[in-house]
Amino acid sequence: MVLDLNSDLGEGFGPWQMGDDAAMLDIVTSANIACGFHAGDPTIMRRTCGLAVERGVRIGAHVGYRDLAGFGRRAIEVDPAQLRDEVLYQIGALGGFAKAAGDRVRYVKPHGALYHSAACTRSVAEAVVTAMVEFDQTLVLLGPAGTELAEAAAASGVGFIGEGFADRAYTPEGSLAPRGLAGAVLAVEDAVAQAVSIAQRGHARTVDAARVRVDAESLCVHGDSPAAVRMARLVRERLAAAGVEVRPFS
Amino acid sequence: MVLDLNSDLGEGFGPWQMGDDAAMLDIVTSANIACGFHAGDPTIMRRTCGLAVERGVRIGAHVGYRDLAGFGRRAIEVDPAQLRDEVLYQIGALGGFAKAAGDRVRYVKPHGALYHSAACTRSVAEAVVTAMVEFDQTLVLLGPAGTELAEAAAASGVGFIGEGFADRAYTPEGSLAPRGLAGAVLAVEDAVAQAVSIAQRGHARTVDAARVRVDAESLCVHGDSPAAVRMARLVRERLAAAGVEVRPFS
Amino acid sequence: MVLDLNSDLGEGFGPWQMGDDAAMLDIVTSANIACGFHAGDPTIMRRTCGLAVERGVRIGAHVGYRDLAGFGRRAIEVDPAQLRDEVLYQIGALGGFAKAAGDRVRYVKPHGALYHSAACTRSVAEAVVTAMVEFDQTLVLLGPAGTELAEAAAASGVGFIGEGFADRAYTPEGSLAPRGLAGAVLAVEDAVAQAVSIAQRGHARTVDAARVRVDAESLCVHGDSPAAVRMARLVRERLAAAGVEVRPFS
Amino acid sequence: MVLDLNSDLGEGFGPWQMGDDAAMLDIVTSANIACGFHAGDPTIMRRTCGLAVERGVRIGAHVGYRDLAGFGRRAIEVDPAQLRDEVLYQIGALGGFAKAAGDRVRYVKPHGALYHSAACTRSVAEAVVTAMVEFDQTLVLLGPAGTELAEAAAASGVGFIGEGFADRAYTPEGSLAPRGLAGAVLAVEDAVAQAVSIAQRGHARTVDAARVRVDAESLCVHGDSPAAVRMARLVRERLAAAGVEVRPFS
Repeated sequence: MVLDLNSDLGEGFGPWQMGDDAAMLDIVTSANIACGFHAGDPTIMRRTCGLAVERGVRIGAHVGYRDLAGFGRRAIEVDPAQLRDEVLYQIGALGGFAKAAGDRVRYVKPHGALYHSAACTRSVAEAVVTAMVEFDQTLVLLGPAGTELAEAAAASGVGFIGEGFADRAYTPEGSLAPRGLAGAVLAVEDAVAQAVSIAQRGHARTVDAARVRVDAESLCVHGDSPAAVRMARLVRERLAAAGVEVRPFS
Repeated sequence: MVLDLNSDLGEGFGPWQMGDDAAMLDIVTSANIACGFHAGDPTIMRRTCGLAVERGVRIGAHVGYRDLAGFGRRAIEVDPAQLRDEVLYQIGALGGFAKAAGDRVRYVKPHGALYHSAACTRSVAEAVVTAMVEFDQTLVLLGPAGTELAEAAAASGVGFIGEGFADRAYTPEGSLAPRGLAGAVLAVEDAVAQAVSIAQRGHARTVDAARVRVDAESLCVHGDSPAAVRMARLVRERLAAAGVEVRPFS
Repeated sequence: MVLDLNSDLGEGFGPWQMGDDAAMLDIVTSANIACGFHAGDPTIMRRTCGLAVERGVRIGAHVGYRDLAGFGRRAIEVDPAQLRDEVLYQIGALGGFAKAAGDRVRYVKPHGALYHSAACTRSVAEAVVTAMVEFDQTLVLLGPAGTELAEAAAASGVGFIGEGFADRAYTPEGSLAPRGLAGAVLAVEDAVAQAVSIAQRGHARTVDAARVRVDAESLCVHGDSPAAVRMARLVRERLAAAGVEVRPFS
Repeated sequence: MVLDLNSDLGEGFGPWQMGDDAAMLDIVTSANIACGFHAGDPTIMRRTCGLAVERGVRIGAHVGYRDLAGFGRRAIEVDPAQLRDEVLYQIGALGGFAKAAGDRVRYVKPHGALYHSAACTRSVAEAVVTAMVEFDQTLVLLGPAGTELAEAAAASGVGFIGEGFADRAYTPEGSLAPRGLAGAVLAVEDAVAQAVSIAQRGHARTVDAARVRVDAESLCVHGDSPAAVRMARLVRERLAAAGVEVRPFS
């Protein structure tokens, strides 16, 4: 049993910081690095790429809507062709820093509202995938399994890695329960148990305390608070204790 | 005798247009394409790269300060390390579109206030050159000869192409006369004559009607008005009539 | 019979221009001035307010989503409380320039995607109206009659002025036909005739060549091309010839 | 003996926070509120104005260069007329939120690089003062005494309040020592002592351990870290213990 751990990193902007990137880079195997559209700026991108490469953590482009003020969390009705261009712009921009750090961009993960739009809407998913293929045929797409993202990747011959969440409950249909819902955010012990369950059995819990199949080769852990960093560390330890090897997806 | 013709292109943003890129791409051999910091957006970058490649025009990254509101014409006291990162970001972003169009970024030209800062200030010039080397050792720097830009390029083993201006008078020291100065902007006939003179003899005129040496393997022509496009076309025709071959620098 | 003529003005940004504001300000009686979120910048806002006051044209705040890259034409899922704040910010910002020009903001018109969202969605309409009331109880709302905007204004005791379009066909339900639809954009003669028909009889034409009731005390004319300016001038002349007094709504 | 305490507040942006505004608003008597150009957004501006009014803290517009990425700390060569417009825009925008909170903007303080440019350069200082007069003749300017800002205010009949810093050493000429200089930033005890000394005797310490006259009716305290908040609280307590009444300037 193997599992990749990924986290959203490099999400500061200018004078503003978010999360403890250095701590998270000691925990995860894949770094979703913001590319300046929803967060991140050139200096932060350089630093995050450098820290990732030092630790052997894989660099991924965390691409989002052009919306710093909303942190990419608000759906924007962008024309698919324009969205494709915005995604290509972001991947390319990160590519320079990955190269400067001695590596290259390995995968792409949509962020926030784009993650959800692309999972549900084929034209949005295709915009992301088309930009990926234009940049580098070998880029892998990281996202929720069983969605339009997975299908768009398959249709274009792009590698796809399914992603699960340790600290979030799912709907009975296997998608993430909205944060607002009661029980949607798991307490530390439940989250750690879910991480092991996803890795070992492909099961996550639903908001109504049932379980649902979640195909995940990569698990997303958050690092935007000291408590989140502690939880991520615990997840990693417990996975190891359960005999799950944490290593980059291949 | 050979000469490259370059022009600043892709300088629209969102709904706003600037200049007639398609017309200019029939005239020039090198396209300085804005990268989204002083002008340009992903969709414009894609379109401009595509039009350039169709016509065999070379793609250059026209990098500027992060200042859409000021069109990159206002000097900003950016820390050199941060400036380096901003330049790398822009080159990388353009790189994706160059690749999607079937080519790659061949050269870099600083824009507006950055052009002037980098010509005068070594640390600024080095920031530009360092980003270039990080992205691709074979990138060439396009800028005014005899300046800090030229020296920084030489010090890093980066190729340098001197640039002249057809429609602008020079100071006796060989730098561009500020636009505000009387006689700084040449009328059409004078500009066309200066283009030929730079190509054939390496001479430009000064604001006090003398002449000054200008080492230029590339000549910048503007396309931001119908009159500018006509002048550019005339420059190209007159160069041909004078036996100057217009082709990309090598 | 009286009618107000309004136009979207001050829609340049930085070095980029849009439309011929000076020409339009000789035609219209109300100026919808962009406030920097979808277009416009401080210097353009000052100039447009100054030109409007010189001609006795009324100043309105043309408020939009925070989306320069998309010109405010893309719907963004903004939380209503945040939208209310963004609208208040824009009205306040314009207020300074109106005052500097010797007048004040008289009305508010939502722009682009916000116009459509607010017409259809009560919470969006209320966000606009709440910001208006906070800034100045006497502000009037300009928008499509019979929509959530009109109802939200009524519910808050805010004055409402219905707006019609000369150059656009309507759906049988009385809303604007989408631009993409065949027949949605009227030719000059049809547009001029529709202007008179709206003023005299409250009738506009539908895409299926029928007619529909349009309650409009103000007619929107565009000025984003030389042809648009000519049409606007013709509309004004024809209204006068038909005995319709063109003057600001009261 | 009386002294005003002011602090830079509302300096988050979108998802990013900076400092503990609520804590600082229990300490200071004047709130310099960011207006969206170097920091701050509409929702933050509303919240900060509301918190200030609840506590009887005066609202000031903290105006800066248009430079979120650089937090307004980088000098930008803005044309004075354009700068005047950018300042008026910011004051107007804050004005709406001050009104919504039940008060109005009382004063203006330039931020960061604009603070320094305006102190040294008359045309920059005049740009700030002109915008103030256009918005409201009764606005007061807060800044360093004995500078171009003070003179520009006097020349326009604008009230001026000199500002001192508790935690920073001065040059022998009475201006702030650059942060980089050894001894430029005072330790807590020294800062608290300097606050009292400025209030009682108009004396601050210089980097070479001498003292210099500092005319200050308002003292700036920072709140961008827990340590800064503690220091600000200690300053307030020590001033009270020394018989200095902390109250808004008049």
